[in-house]
Amino acid sequence: MASVRIREAEKGDCGHILRLIRELAEYEKLSEQVQISEEGPRVVGYGLYYFIYSTWKGRNVYLEDIYVTPECRGQGIGSEIIKKVAQVALDQGCSQFRLAVLDWNQRAMALYKALGAQDLTETEGWHAFRFEGEAMRKLAGK
Amino acid sequence: MASVRIREAEKGDCGHILRLIRELAEYEKLSEQVQISEEGPRVVGYGLYYFIYSTWKGRNVYLEDIYVTPECRGQGIGSEIIKKVAQVALDQGCSQFRLAVLDWNQRAMALYKALGAQDLTETEGWHAFRFEGEAMRKLAGK
Repeated sequence: MASVRIREAEKGDCGHILRLIRELAEYEKLSEQVQISEEGPRVVGYGLYYFIYSTWKGRNVYLEDIYVTPECRGQGIGSEIIKKVAQVALDQGCSQFRLAVLDWNQRAMALYKALGAQDLTETEGWHAFRFEGEAMRKLAGK
Repeated sequence: MASVRIREAEKGDCGHILRLIRELAEYEKLSEQVQISEEGPRVVGYGLYYFIYSTWKGRNVYLEDIYVTPECRGQGIGSEIIKKVAQVALDQGCSQFRLAVLDWNQRAMALYKALGAQDLTETEGWHAFRFEGEAMRKLAGK
């Protein structure tokens, strides 16, 4: 970990991050959902998050993606990214911090639990639903 | 359904909606997570949604809550709210429309599936994780 620095993204990181997004999509077996073309060389991980203000749940942060390149795993970089997001979230007055993970990604699940996260699908029974293209158009009568 | 109109919320609806939010929390057995005090009389349902721009997933809409009062269920109001959100989402250029549901809420699950939604927890294995208070502070070193 000595040579890794966790920092907020800058404009010049976009190419690097797009490469990592594509790698993550391949890992998640969801490549067909990614349409990007830019390339770049030397960012080894990222965490993409956003803030939501929900009426009764307060201000929350959602971690959309977290990714570390295969050659840099096992060095605690993922944990450091999550810690950074937790710091930013607390500084922003957030009360919760949410993320989603695929059930076959046991390594990620074990990490999140070890860091103190609760698996809401397991403990409360939350399921994620999605409407897409044709279903949305049909619903909207378009 | 003849006397029900689906429209966007206005400032004056806040009291009504807060009452419904509390009812929903009771229904979800999550009342302890709600701290609200206002009251109001005659809105019979609501859908709370927000838009997210995610780098590679495009512009999405998330349906945070959808609720219809017990006495007004079975009239298709929930479906009408979802259709309205789908219309708004398409008008905003969204490619997806997501929501979360508790697995014991079979009525809601059946409705969403009937309307064309896919259960991503069932089909792709997505689990929802959450960090809260103490776990977040520990992570952030605060």
